[in-house]
Amino acid sequence: MPLGEFDLIERYFRKPAESLRLARGDAPVGIGDDAALLQPPSGQLLVAALDTLVEGRHFPLGSSAASIGHRALAVNLSDLAAMGAEPAWFLLALTLPAAQPEFLEGFAAGMLRLAAAHRVALVGGDTTSGPLSVSVQALGFVPPGKALRRAGGKAGDLLYVSGTPGDAAAGLQLELAQPQSSAVASTAQRRLRDRFLYPEPRVALGLALRGVASACIDVSDGLAADAGKLALASNCGVRIDLERIRFSAELLATHDTAAAARFALAGGDDYELCFTVSPARASEIDALAANVKCQVTCIGVLEDGRALRVLERGAAVPIDVDGYDHFAHR
Amino acid sequence: MPLGEFDLIERYFRKPAESLRLARGDAPVGIGDDAALLQPPSGQLLVAALDTLVEGRHFPLGSSAASIGHRALAVNLSDLAAMGAEPAWFLLALTLPAAQPEFLEGFAAGMLRLAAAHRVALVGGDTTSGPLSVSVQALGFVPPGKALRRAGGKAGDLLYVSGTPGDAAAGLQLELAQPQSSAVASTAQRRLRDRFLYPEPRVALGLALRGVASACIDVSDGLAADAGKLALASNCGVRIDLERIRFSAELLATHDTAAAARFALAGGDDYELCFTVSPARASEIDALAANVKCQVTCIGVLEDGRALRVLERGAAVPIDVDGYDHFAHR
Repeated sequence: MPLGEFDLIERYFRKPAESLRLARGDAPVGIGDDAALLQPPSGQLLVAALDTLVEGRHFPLGSSAASIGHRALAVNLSDLAAMGAEPAWFLLALTLPAAQPEFLEGFAAGMLRLAAAHRVALVGGDTTSGPLSVSVQALGFVPPGKALRRAGGKAGDLLYVSGTPGDAAAGLQLELAQPQSSAVASTAQRRLRDRFLYPEPRVALGLALRGVASACIDVSDGLAADAGKLALASNCGVRIDLERIRFSAELLATHDTAAAARFALAGGDDYELCFTVSPARASEIDALAANVKCQVTCIGVLEDGRALRVLERGAAVPIDVDGYDHFAHR
Repeated sequence: MPLGEFDLIERYFRKPAESLRLARGDAPVGIGDDAALLQPPSGQLLVAALDTLVEGRHFPLGSSAASIGHRALAVNLSDLAAMGAEPAWFLLALTLPAAQPEFLEGFAAGMLRLAAAHRVALVGGDTTSGPLSVSVQALGFVPPGKALRRAGGKAGDLLYVSGTPGDAAAGLQLELAQPQSSAVASTAQRRLRDRFLYPEPRVALGLALRGVASACIDVSDGLAADAGKLALASNCGVRIDLERIRFSAELLATHDTAAAARFALAGGDDYELCFTVSPARASEIDALAANVKCQVTCIGVLEDGRALRVLERGAAVPIDVDGYDHFAHR
């Protein structure tokens, strides 16, 4: 017997989400009305992100349900992190070909585990039948004047990225080659795959960068494309020094440097933060990053002009900004 | 040459949406960052709705782009209306098989025309490639203690519905039979079809019902199912008196009463408000409805118990609550 929409929401989402909602104390009613009722803190700006994951486009066919649930929320928390926002609540619009309990159980578990880690409460949404896709709408807060934006960088500002970019793209390639067959994978391969399947939104780093970073974006489409978007919004050019990018031991254990660079620059899905800092404040960055236990690396600089340049020890590297555009390139 | 995501958003959404955003004055930055930055009014609760329309499920294959854009926003404004909320902003997640300028132009025009009519600003979102589906996230406000909810009705409260239910379901049937071929349709048929293609969210009525209605829901799945949900949330049963439902002249000109009743009770897509009022306040309803130029009709009553009953001149009408559940019934 197929599960009804009501049972489905009740069993997999509403009940597990309830304790988090009550713990927050700022969502006066539970899931089940036509819309969620929320109590924003006074004197703060609201920050709202809406991102959709579509099967076969944002995750491979046959991806684990827990990963899909995790990633759908993670990409939206990452958007809030890039704005320097503190996440509070989210809504879920889930489109499914059929209501399969095994899928829903894993999906909800993956999503709600990440929600609990960041104390964000699921407060509403919608389920419907159709080709598998997941829209999440995340809401958070930032004090007036403290939001990080893509605009705001100036020529001369240093360009940073968090974590070890390229891992997720390498992990996706592994996932496509050997889906869920972790038995045959090495430890390095499993770690890379997990970096794709379970990206960690850099919420604490985003909060720490308030008032420090001059501009910020999250890395969803590859470092080159996203640094390029930040530069464009800041009316600058940007130079990335390839040799300064810090690759993970796992990536270097499984790929040569050229492949690692391709993954980092053009691969996408890392959900690291890419941000700029004026030279006067650069000395604060190491302590700030250590404080939130997140590695950050200076990889370049904003420049006059509008060019996106990648250099390797001073020599220009031709870069096809792939991953930039869903319709034109993928 | 395919249009890029950036151009697409720029041309069809960002520029046309800009004047509305500026006119509101409470969304300090335009579309283009990782998330929208919004200034909620102090002392009010935030109301958030997220609904998805999927091609072939919520609208027929080959629907007009303007209608899809209109409906995707309308169903979310209807959710806010059902909460008694004043709509302010929305985000759009658009999944498209390809970026076709003709489609996008019509879609954006349909969506932004409705947005302008309700002074809601498009403040962000996401476009991606995949099977056609549209998620809209609408945000609005309501003073504390004033939100309408499904819970709150009491046995003895009178049950009302706005407008002329059943039109949209009849219109959908016409649309499926003769898609977009208005040349061969009668005036009545065209009007019914427009009721499906361009539903009018009852925002002003929802605002007027604050502090007056004891419970409220919007009619998306048919009057019987939605009145049933309201009653369930209010811990009541509900009786609908079939002969009191007011059908439109267009519906009665094209269908017999039995068909009209089926469309109204089980058809869905009307996006009217179904609400309850205590007998002591029922005398206020006619003036309130006239004030917002929206016809409302008393069609039944909440009862003790948990039953959903439909009577015709006192005799029980068997009712299969169709349209209740996407997975189990459709």
